[in-house]
Amino acid sequence: MIIVLKPQPSPEQIQHVLERIEELGFTPHLSQGVSRTIIGVIGDERKLQATPLQAISGVEQVIPVLKPFKLASKEFRPDPSVFEVKGIRIGGGHLAVIAGPCAIEGEEIFFEIAEAVRAAGANVLRGGAFKPRTSPYSFQGLGEEGLKILKAAGDRFAMPTVTEVMDPRQIDLVCRYADILQIGARNMQNFDLLKEIGRTDKLVMLKRGMSATVKDLLMSAEYILSQGNHKVILCERGVRSFEDSTRNMMDLSAIPNAQGQSHLPIIADPSHATGRPDLIPAMARASIAAGADGVHVEVHTCPEQALSDGPQALLPEPFAALVDDLRRLAEVLGRTIDSCEGVAV
Amino acid sequence: MIIVLKPQPSPEQIQHVLERIEELGFTPHLSQGVSRTIIGVIGDERKLQATPLQAISGVEQVIPVLKPFKLASKEFRPDPSVFEVKGIRIGGGHLAVIAGPCAIEGEEIFFEIAEAVRAAGANVLRGGAFKPRTSPYSFQGLGEEGLKILKAAGDRFAMPTVTEVMDPRQIDLVCRYADILQIGARNMQNFDLLKEIGRTDKLVMLKRGMSATVKDLLMSAEYILSQGNHKVILCERGVRSFEDSTRNMMDLSAIPNAQGQSHLPIIADPSHATGRPDLIPAMARASIAAGADGVHVEVHTCPEQALSDGPQALLPEPFAALVDDLRRLAEVLGRTIDSCEGVAV
Amino acid sequence: MIIVLKPQPSPEQIQHVLERIEELGFTPHLSQGVSRTIIGVIGDERKLQATPLQAISGVEQVIPVLKPFKLASKEFRPDPSVFEVKGIRIGGGHLAVIAGPCAIEGEEIFFEIAEAVRAAGANVLRGGAFKPRTSPYSFQGLGEEGLKILKAAGDRFAMPTVTEVMDPRQIDLVCRYADILQIGARNMQNFDLLKEIGRTDKLVMLKRGMSATVKDLLMSAEYILSQGNHKVILCERGVRSFEDSTRNMMDLSAIPNAQGQSHLPIIADPSHATGRPDLIPAMARASIAAGADGVHVEVHTCPEQALSDGPQALLPEPFAALVDDLRRLAEVLGRTIDSCEGVAV
Amino acid sequence: MIIVLKPQPSPEQIQHVLERIEELGFTPHLSQGVSRTIIGVIGDERKLQATPLQAISGVEQVIPVLKPFKLASKEFRPDPSVFEVKGIRIGGGHLAVIAGPCAIEGEEIFFEIAEAVRAAGANVLRGGAFKPRTSPYSFQGLGEEGLKILKAAGDRFAMPTVTEVMDPRQIDLVCRYADILQIGARNMQNFDLLKEIGRTDKLVMLKRGMSATVKDLLMSAEYILSQGNHKVILCERGVRSFEDSTRNMMDLSAIPNAQGQSHLPIIADPSHATGRPDLIPAMARASIAAGADGVHVEVHTCPEQALSDGPQALLPEPFAALVDDLRRLAEVLGRTIDSCEGVAV
Repeated sequence: MIIVLKPQPSPEQIQHVLERIEELGFTPHLSQGVSRTIIGVIGDERKLQATPLQAISGVEQVIPVLKPFKLASKEFRPDPSVFEVKGIRIGGGHLAVIAGPCAIEGEEIFFEIAEAVRAAGANVLRGGAFKPRTSPYSFQGLGEEGLKILKAAGDRFAMPTVTEVMDPRQIDLVCRYADILQIGARNMQNFDLLKEIGRTDKLVMLKRGMSATVKDLLMSAEYILSQGNHKVILCERGVRSFEDSTRNMMDLSAIPNAQGQSHLPIIADPSHATGRPDLIPAMARASIAAGADGVHVEVHTCPEQALSDGPQALLPEPFAALVDDLRRLAEVLGRTIDSCEGVAV
Repeated sequence: MIIVLKPQPSPEQIQHVLERIEELGFTPHLSQGVSRTIIGVIGDERKLQATPLQAISGVEQVIPVLKPFKLASKEFRPDPSVFEVKGIRIGGGHLAVIAGPCAIEGEEIFFEIAEAVRAAGANVLRGGAFKPRTSPYSFQGLGEEGLKILKAAGDRFAMPTVTEVMDPRQIDLVCRYADILQIGARNMQNFDLLKEIGRTDKLVMLKRGMSATVKDLLMSAEYILSQGNHKVILCERGVRSFEDSTRNMMDLSAIPNAQGQSHLPIIADPSHATGRPDLIPAMARASIAAGADGVHVEVHTCPEQALSDGPQALLPEPFAALVDDLRRLAEVLGRTIDSCEGVAV
Repeated sequence: MIIVLKPQPSPEQIQHVLERIEELGFTPHLSQGVSRTIIGVIGDERKLQATPLQAISGVEQVIPVLKPFKLASKEFRPDPSVFEVKGIRIGGGHLAVIAGPCAIEGEEIFFEIAEAVRAAGANVLRGGAFKPRTSPYSFQGLGEEGLKILKAAGDRFAMPTVTEVMDPRQIDLVCRYADILQIGARNMQNFDLLKEIGRTDKLVMLKRGMSATVKDLLMSAEYILSQGNHKVILCERGVRSFEDSTRNMMDLSAIPNAQGQSHLPIIADPSHATGRPDLIPAMARASIAAGADGVHVEVHTCPEQALSDGPQALLPEPFAALVDDLRRLAEVLGRTIDSCEGVAV
Repeated sequence: MIIVLKPQPSPEQIQHVLERIEELGFTPHLSQGVSRTIIGVIGDERKLQATPLQAISGVEQVIPVLKPFKLASKEFRPDPSVFEVKGIRIGGGHLAVIAGPCAIEGEEIFFEIAEAVRAAGANVLRGGAFKPRTSPYSFQGLGEEGLKILKAAGDRFAMPTVTEVMDPRQIDLVCRYADILQIGARNMQNFDLLKEIGRTDKLVMLKRGMSATVKDLLMSAEYILSQGNHKVILCERGVRSFEDSTRNMMDLSAIPNAQGQSHLPIIADPSHATGRPDLIPAMARASIAAGADGVHVEVHTCPEQALSDGPQALLPEPFAALVDDLRRLAEVLGRTIDSCEGVAV
């Protein structure tokens, strides 16, 4: 940590800063330049994060040098984490192809979609039972009934499943039915939820918040890891911006950016990022080329009847064509996509 | 709702859209222009919000005409809502001056700060017992012990109190100790939390999310109102932006913007919006001039020892000078600031 | 300037950085910590700005300590600059009230508006002759004919005038007719234009770019100042954001923020910032309360016939009521608004 | 164009809007619903763009239905434009690989870099002679001397060249030396520059502004096209955002987004978009997978000695490896990269 003092600090101000740092158990290192005095602080600066050094009289700026996360960092674990669920590996060159409808709307339609995405090559099945909707008057999900359908479809098609948890009180319930717990963008900084999920041993898919930096995303992962659960998959799903022709702005640089700092896998969700089926295939391809450890795509057999986010769903046919493209790109790039085994579809 | 079709739609496409609208119980109204065909949909379009008309073949754009919120709107209640808590009115020309430390750190220091802000003219006391911190290694708040201190200070200084609730499981506990429940920016779209708080009868202070539009903020208020609790105060606290010299970008236009659409009071929080004590007084004054129904300011008697957000706290003396400024501005603008009664401080 | 090295740098890497700094004429100052090695660079770091120290092998981060502007800074000139034009002072507690239509559309209508804003208390007259329109098919301004009308109205009503210059080739022409040269938001980083205007001795009004930080704005002012013209008034006019209910997001904290770093006056333009007449009065009041050295408001006697930006213009009557509000606020805040003299209107 | 009236408009208000539309030569189409009255306007709405219908009393919203650009649109020219310069085709499946240093710093170093990028497979040579620098104290480019070096290197290595024009007064000069005129991000809405360049017959590379939407970018292209020059290549180079770990946020969805609306080629510039050599290769690969018609990459043989933007330059070796990756991706995706002919390098 570097502390920059205001121009012409008094000797008392300098002395007070030095004492304060020593009080906190760190070693200060003073450099007096012509225009600024700088104090380096030697020691584990994560312990200083809660200390408002900036509020000390005479201090102009406090500049952290180390990353604020530890367990999520590459320094802690240099090799990419690879997680396996129902035989499907995710991370370290193994790509997840997660697909399904936004919401689970009923057994028949969900099985129909599950069969279609499985046939197209998806290796994880998604579907929402608890839906975070911006309007209280919109469909809020089927709850436990939806979870039962999800589990039945996962069993039927031998696919691991992922579904969103919105409330700490739902965790036990969801853990009984799903293989992967999704934390949605709106809950990326719901810290109580992160902590509770960190106490389970389920694989977690953590979506980037709409105004979260990559560092914020990694800090939220750190919350989960700090509670003992180290199985976190990050997910880039676009951030809010001024561009009004797409639902969000997809920040694909977050993929290599996170991978350069963390061992955790990171996948990309072009469906929520763009909100536009005409852009999803190109952005899914781009995600894999950027190095993503998988994609997350919403698919529906009848988008115009979907109860949630229909307009952004792909139909099964273009989805199947897309998975073919992804396979060819993966091959060129030296990566693999595991297939679900054990049932003929 | 207006549905714009793609250029040269087929008669079947047009027919299908018309039928779908009628199926849903609405009356379509067709206008065929040279370059575009437009279908107006007559009826309460809020019921259409969950219906993905945009996914119908041949549809280019679906343009909502009505606002998606109802109970929060001025059309529902034309006059400004005024809420009263422990004799302090907020809304409709009555200004809240909410002050206190970011976190409750201990009884002695909290009473010292409470006394100072009360003496300076604050009429609501704030302090966090559950803290949403971006790092799991930062101070997370004193929990129930903090709530007890908050209540004791509110009683001692005859001030209504406000504190944050982060988790639905904390609501009962917090309701026992505090007068106003704060929903933090990171939880503005924690819909389960909104719904549960909507089932209490406590006054609520709902902070704008870091990437929420004014409409999003009003939709979150609508969640609370839709459950029966109509006592919501909105709070502008800055949004994320590219400007890196302030913590957030304070969007003061949200004040008149929300007031033009909603009867709910809206206050401003220059502390979190700017993160800089040198800018807080100017922005608090500007908030009142913009029409805010109050301000929310962090105050600490020793910012450099604060366990949370110390660098953005004002000292009691500049805070007292600021309240004097706000009183003079309020007078010029025809507004009033209620004082806490019943105890000599 | 502080150079942070990557973890475990080799002795050769450290040596190379130290030599490079000395080669450039600076004194390096090495601090080796447990987890990072830091090198402070003593000397005028502005000279280092063009040097890509970050590209040196082993360097993780280069952190500037000083502000990159000099002539615009408070360190260079601690007291606020006050500029006078036709007897109107701007800066240092003297407020500009700049008003007029977006574009000069014809002599009769411009004189009618000029008379109205003068009567309402405006002390600078604005009107565009060269218009930066996003569409090549929109009205582009009357050019020199417009400038003649502007000058005639300024003379008739004894008001200083301001108009936009978009192209270095227009500068001489515009200087012959107008008192203040406006640089529009879209040209804030048109560096050739800035340099040429810096070689004139005209007062300049420099608008903040749509994605410019306060530091960027001050760097653009520095361009003008570095050429010899020190008469620059800054103007906050909103920045691009995700909020879609206003034209831009007005960043009022830029006012005290710029004033804390620079001696240059800064005014606020709520017309372009909000694009909504229903929000302009509240935001103009807030601007003055935030400490702005003036406001810039578009006024039109018949907005629905305006050739440019009609929907955001105020009518003369609400504008006159607004100026009354501003006078009362200015009085409370200890500031003054000069009046145009010399003609009875 | 659709005009939405405020609730309960008076018959006079409705009448006035209808008359105004007819006066302007358009046919209004009235739909009166329960909660809103809507007026469709039939006719070429581009002519209405300068008319402030929103300022008419009783009007709540004016919603355009058609895109505001014409010559740049796919409706005007359904097939992708392909431009050829010195035998290199760009657009319609033919990829540009544009490379070179940020600034031309001298003959020897520029020839060295040119030779390296040509050998690596680049097919267009870039280098700046006029540099838009945020600081007036930074290196501003070699001017005409730089242009001469650029031309000599283009001739020597049989490569077409691209360089930035910042000022309308430089156009003739630059046209004498370079094959492609670059309009930088900061000048994307320098409308006088756009118009003047629109009167030349040179190929143009137009970079997206830092806060420009895709529509804004296409409108700026429309400016050039409207003057007669139809040879415009768009360039995505990142936009400003809150993410502070990259220089800009690269919006790759702009690639398929622009291609869906316009026949103009669009390339991607991961160097300026990320500012980080560690992210450039991944983002260049992603750009091609997203469908970009080429990439623009800064390369320098000695980044730490570069006079401009050194830290974001790739070294020749990783650049050559990247071009190999791009060739393999292009092959899988059915696209081609033309090679420069005529000289053995």
